[in-house]
Amino acid sequence: MADGARPVTLQSIAKELGLHVSTVSRILNGPAATGARAASTVTADRVRRLAAELGYRPDPHATGLRTRRSNLIGVLVPRMSDLVLAMIHEGIEEAATAKGLSTIAVNTFDRPETRRARTDMLIARRTDGLIFGDARVQDDFLAEIATRGTPFVLVNRHSADHPSVTCDDRLGGRLAADHLLGLGHRNIAIIAGEPHASTGVDRVAGFLERCAEKGVTVPPHRIAHGGFDTAAGRAAADRLLTTDPELTAVFAVNDFAAIGALGAARDRGLRVGDDLAVMGYNDTPLAAELPLPLTSVSSSTHEMGRRALAMLVRILAGEQPPSERLRPQLTARASTGC
Amino acid sequence: MADGARPVTLQSIAKELGLHVSTVSRILNGPAATGARAASTVTADRVRRLAAELGYRPDPHATGLRTRRSNLIGVLVPRMSDLVLAMIHEGIEEAATAKGLSTIAVNTFDRPETRRARTDMLIARRTDGLIFGDARVQDDFLAEIATRGTPFVLVNRHSADHPSVTCDDRLGGRLAADHLLGLGHRNIAIIAGEPHASTGVDRVAGFLERCAEKGVTVPPHRIAHGGFDTAAGRAAADRLLTTDPELTAVFAVNDFAAIGALGAARDRGLRVGDDLAVMGYNDTPLAAELPLPLTSVSSSTHEMGRRALAMLVRILAGEQPPSERLRPQLTARASTGC
Repeated sequence: MADGARPVTLQSIAKELGLHVSTVSRILNGPAATGARAASTVTADRVRRLAAELGYRPDPHATGLRTRRSNLIGVLVPRMSDLVLAMIHEGIEEAATAKGLSTIAVNTFDRPETRRARTDMLIARRTDGLIFGDARVQDDFLAEIATRGTPFVLVNRHSADHPSVTCDDRLGGRLAADHLLGLGHRNIAIIAGEPHASTGVDRVAGFLERCAEKGVTVPPHRIAHGGFDTAAGRAAADRLLTTDPELTAVFAVNDFAAIGALGAARDRGLRVGDDLAVMGYNDTPLAAELPLPLTSVSSSTHEMGRRALAMLVRILAGEQPPSERLRPQLTARASTGC
Repeated sequence: MADGARPVTLQSIAKELGLHVSTVSRILNGPAATGARAASTVTADRVRRLAAELGYRPDPHATGLRTRRSNLIGVLVPRMSDLVLAMIHEGIEEAATAKGLSTIAVNTFDRPETRRARTDMLIARRTDGLIFGDARVQDDFLAEIATRGTPFVLVNRHSADHPSVTCDDRLGGRLAADHLLGLGHRNIAIIAGEPHASTGVDRVAGFLERCAEKGVTVPPHRIAHGGFDTAAGRAAADRLLTTDPELTAVFAVNDFAAIGALGAARDRGLRVGDDLAVMGYNDTPLAAELPLPLTSVSSSTHEMGRRALAMLVRILAGEQPPSERLRPQLTARASTGC
């Protein structure tokens, strides 16, 4: 069906494409050979593509068997101007298109009331399911949504035991610690991101865990919380470098926060990669291309989005797939002297 | 109506919010004082917010007067992972929400067949109107869409005389030229972006126009076309700096391409802002926060999105608003020695 109440019919496809319904019928319902002869290849391709995108299926029982499916998936992200979420969404959209589903993506800005209003809107539009990219560590709202009948999965951030596809961020934090410890750093600070997001929480926890295993302590005053963006990273690095001139390394849980730290270091005359090691997380396309290439941990954003959509499709089919944690990978570059 | 065929009723709002229909009715249809007494302020706020988002209107004639409006707007962008488009979309979404409209945003990747398939899908979903952020200088597809009955506006890139909201990119190019010429530069190269996008074309045209007025020539071999992203900017700068060591300034028509140029300069041992001036365009939030802050021209992305939605609403109301060109503004920073 094209939306909550309008079935995808041969007539509606014909109308949208400016074709006669008999042409569309021959292409979609005729035997393969007949379909090929019914119209030019270009026209047949357009008809089949739109039919696939809208989830059209020939209905042998005519009007009796309408499904309740809208083939619309709602996607809620903190903000699409965060490149990490835009790339996850590209993965979701690509996988959705391949399944004949469309996505409505909305920004929630990590604001509870915006999130509630837009979730209400998406459910009222009869979305088949939702993908939340803005889960919080403590999230009563998700528990409430779970009672309202619209299936959902989480992506990027996990919460409680709701089904989710995320990076194994604890492992990613461990990899980051191994890298900096292996380079000999002992006076290390962390730009930790928002305490309500599992991404930041897990990356920090894994980092601290691995440091402790190696006998290195990161005291609380060297862990700076704040936003994930460049301005927040810069402010955090300014605070850390002012109070603690002995620092030799900074782990930022996000590439954009790391870019802010690069700026703070330069303005103090510190040579990054030499006087101060700086590393990020997510390995966004920018990391490798920066004037000073940034060491980072890949979180497989595009693949994460594809898998979140696949998981939601399985749930819509009645399955109960387990949550997935994608394996991160560290790439060493000049910002840590590599 | 919530979608192409399902009207927004008191019943549907009540069901989504888990309330009794009489509660919703009292809140939405009762006199103001009654509405205030009908439920807690929190509940009343949720009901009113969802009703507003879905475009609910009390219908005095009951079932007779259904409109054809879905209150859904389709937004097509080259890719949301381009920060410029994500910020334009935030403006569109904000203005749409205020009008009780929802947006379906899709990526088209500047690929003609993806664009056609997703436009077909959006029209078949009964979107009230479309906003194209991926217009091409020569665009037969838009002329075709104009014949199919779904109104549209263009944003960021203009084409032919279709209604559009864009930055005055020709003026922006002139401002960039004035800046570099005023600093004494005469050997200037341009990283020009894609030749099918009016943004790149107009910025280059304005730049060249102003240079010519000041008696400075930018020969064709100093104009490098390519993508708008960091990798493309880096490749273009590498070519330009290799063939032309006399260059003292580079104007990139996009901040991300300019960041690529910063990397190319550094790798050659050039001190940006001193040996080589580099400037960008769009003044993304990253520009001011980079280790070496980037001189750039603001294109008012968020406001552009808001105005595009407002223009589409006027067209849906039967008006014929004129196209708008927003005024750009240059901010000088360290990358041009300021």
